[in-house]
Amino acid sequence: MIRLYDYWRSSAAYRVRIALNLKGLAYESVPVNLLAAEHTAEDNLARNPQGLVPTLEIDGATLTQSVAIIDYLDATRPDPALLPSDPLGRARALAGALAVTSDIHPIANLRVLKRLETQFGADQPAKEDWYRHWVRTGFDALETIAKAAEGPFLGGPAPGLADICLVPQMYNARRFEMQVDAWPTLVAVDAACTTLPAFAAAHPDRCKP
Amino acid sequence: MIRLYDYWRSSAAYRVRIALNLKGLAYESVPVNLLAAEHTAEDNLARNPQGLVPTLEIDGATLTQSVAIIDYLDATRPDPALLPSDPLGRARALAGALAVTSDIHPIANLRVLKRLETQFGADQPAKEDWYRHWVRTGFDALETIAKAAEGPFLGGPAPGLADICLVPQMYNARRFEMQVDAWPTLVAVDAACTTLPAFAAAHPDRCKP
Repeated sequence: MIRLYDYWRSSAAYRVRIALNLKGLAYESVPVNLLAAEHTAEDNLARNPQGLVPTLEIDGATLTQSVAIIDYLDATRPDPALLPSDPLGRARALAGALAVTSDIHPIANLRVLKRLETQFGADQPAKEDWYRHWVRTGFDALETIAKAAEGPFLGGPAPGLADICLVPQMYNARRFEMQVDAWPTLVAVDAACTTLPAFAAAHPDRCKP
Repeated sequence: MIRLYDYWRSSAAYRVRIALNLKGLAYESVPVNLLAAEHTAEDNLARNPQGLVPTLEIDGATLTQSVAIIDYLDATRPDPALLPSDPLGRARALAGALAVTSDIHPIANLRVLKRLETQFGADQPAKEDWYRHWVRTGFDALETIAKAAEGPFLGGPAPGLADICLVPQMYNARRFEMQVDAWPTLVAVDAACTTLPAFAAAHPDRCKP
């Protein structure tokens, strides 16, 4: 039994849902409501010391951090591969993924926007401005990276880790009403991904409790 | 010839310096002065579309993102190993590393502190308060993770990727005058690391141009 501690709108949880679907792995989704602060409750902290989602229970182990989880799934369930097996291809895929998961999402997620409010009294427009600044900075770089990729996916002919990380961030950017046309290659990659059933089934609208 | 585009005080570059030293790899360090905005200059953007450091030139390739670079070094120069070869150990090591590289450092680095200043008029004490909040949040979780590790390193009997990520963050926290005694296990891990020549030689004070 694979169990995902999940929140429908969490980008990091969305990544793991896509990966599980691409691997064809059935799982039970257990909602952890971030808006109700369930992530900071004792039971979530016991399984995820950072008080975050996602957490994955699999093979008798409890795993945290979406990129580490997806790397584990790829090592233990290699088909279809989500990361290239050659070290150079792997390094490039990982770098593309980390450009989203380290350098966009953690600076612009719910807990950071909340802190802007409590520490600096940021109102909704100021928080949106902050959010859009970091997405813009990250997507500008990622568009350059994407243009150099073979396509139609960042991972080449099949979707991989970088695609899995891009799609939730793109969903998120649209939710913040960003004009994503500025990044045509990213929009094309996102469109290629979202037609696939594995991506479609992981979409927040399909995972809302 | 291995060439590292480096900045002596960058945590991410410091990680790669440690890894190169642990692997016994000689390299040329090319300084990219972040304070002089050299990272946003055209030549740096050409090698690193995100306009960040580090970038590593190795084996005819140009690699970005410290965690991806270290993973590449480990795949191509396996001795000594910086990540466990079993998928579960690997997932745990990667999760410990990402708890620093995704969930502390990117929220509290120079470009974010600068943005707090330009967008919210944050003064030095406000920026330090922001910095310390995210380090405290991350180190609280990491202390729990570290307590469960075998020791003396996060990686067990030998230093690994998570240790490589912890040490620069600990250096950074001390630079911001944080009382790190609140995390005794992390302080012990840091002390065990910093006695090793590979860590000592990568220290910013030793790499200042």
